[in-house]
Amino acid sequence: MSQPITACVLIIGNEILSGRTQDINLNHIAKTLGGWGIQIHEARVIPDDVDVIVSAVNQSRARFDYVFTTGGIGPTHDDITAQCIAQAFNVELMMHPDIAARIKQRPAPDDVMASRLLMARVPTGATLIDNPTGGPQGFAMENVYVMAGIPIIMQAMLSTLAGQLNSGPVVLSRSIRAFLGESQIAGELGKIQAKYSQVDIGSYPFFSNERYGTTLVIRGSDTDLLEQVAQDIMTTVRAAGESPEDLGLGA
Amino acid sequence: MSQPITACVLIIGNEILSGRTQDINLNHIAKTLGGWGIQIHEARVIPDDVDVIVSAVNQSRARFDYVFTTGGIGPTHDDITAQCIAQAFNVELMMHPDIAARIKQRPAPDDVMASRLLMARVPTGATLIDNPTGGPQGFAMENVYVMAGIPIIMQAMLSTLAGQLNSGPVVLSRSIRAFLGESQIAGELGKIQAKYSQVDIGSYPFFSNERYGTTLVIRGSDTDLLEQVAQDIMTTVRAAGESPEDLGLGA
Repeated sequence: MSQPITACVLIIGNEILSGRTQDINLNHIAKTLGGWGIQIHEARVIPDDVDVIVSAVNQSRARFDYVFTTGGIGPTHDDITAQCIAQAFNVELMMHPDIAARIKQRPAPDDVMASRLLMARVPTGATLIDNPTGGPQGFAMENVYVMAGIPIIMQAMLSTLAGQLNSGPVVLSRSIRAFLGESQIAGELGKIQAKYSQVDIGSYPFFSNERYGTTLVIRGSDTDLLEQVAQDIMTTVRAAGESPEDLGLGA
Repeated sequence: MSQPITACVLIIGNEILSGRTQDINLNHIAKTLGGWGIQIHEARVIPDDVDVIVSAVNQSRARFDYVFTTGGIGPTHDDITAQCIAQAFNVELMMHPDIAARIKQRPAPDDVMASRLLMARVPTGATLIDNPTGGPQGFAMENVYVMAGIPIIMQAMLSTLAGQLNSGPVVLSRSIRAFLGESQIAGELGKIQAKYSQVDIGSYPFFSNERYGTTLVIRGSDTDLLEQVAQDIMTTVRAAGESPEDLGLGA
């Protein structure tokens, strides 16, 4: 089996850390990359602070196959991601002609255009990530992919990377739901996990229809094995006196 | 002015990194701590992996005044937070009599009770965080606060810490909205930020009623200064030909 491909997501922005904004980018990136066979192993939410960003970029690009950043690529003083990436790679910022050309398509007074053109600055050597919304492009430096923070723009940029990245085995999940408390099956579940080390079994309690229940999620790349583990878990649920609900296989 | 008090949030769980679950705990913790005068400087989402958790706990407890963790304190094999905290502090796990007593209030067969009592294990020397939902308590080791991952339980636990933690100045935010592209005021906004270094000015584009606009958020602890900066920004918006909408002061 091919090696897993790993990724780290860096969510850049004071507004996430202050609670002003609820991040939804991590979830979208996780689902999208998961479908491409890339597993997120860590995500960090960091402030608009040069030293923190540079250090996080350099740590994560060394540890993971890919790094994806969101936020901080607009035209205002608090948009410092491009300069931080340049600093992390020890290169100069340059005005990218393709981004500048796109920005200049929409006319504006000189001072406004000067501000807009700040979005054309990329680290020297960067390649572009297209932006199907029509706005300025994102960019990649080696294994670091720099995208917008606004979800609809980030999603558009990410979609253009389909088929462009190295991928490992796609991790599938098979889920089973039961109206049982976690403790009622914890012992047996631990034995099943110990028996099948190639899958990860997660147990997630929920409260629905005035009853407590548990969703059991089996994650792995081998569908036959997922089926076998699912059968073992359903047998355990039945032995505890409840009917398992098989939620089936999802990416 | 008193020193800022800093915090790091560690969100523990494969289900967040795989995209199965959308985290909403960070946002709640950020707003709650912000109101108490504690600023989150970083958040990390990390997998159910002993080495990663132990390392993240040890790094963050040394760097920040407080560390808050969510997730991994249930009764199943994938709930490893308590043992990781014990390992990070180099102490043994112990059965806490107060948690055990609460768990034993609800009768269960021996094997189920044995699983439930796994939730009574805390690192030796830990103090408890009460759980107003009636379930097992969370715990604190020095400056590390360990809470449940289920939002309603985490929120209940966090609420019991009100008034119990060191606090710094509360950072307030004053927001102004305008139907202007960011580039139309980026230059002036940068000058205002340079003039007032004691506040942080953030610029957040939005799309509403078919028009693009920008929300400008001024964050700082001095209300007079926030007012002064807000007036400068509103003057800038008017000079750009738009009417600013003053969203006022919020925590």
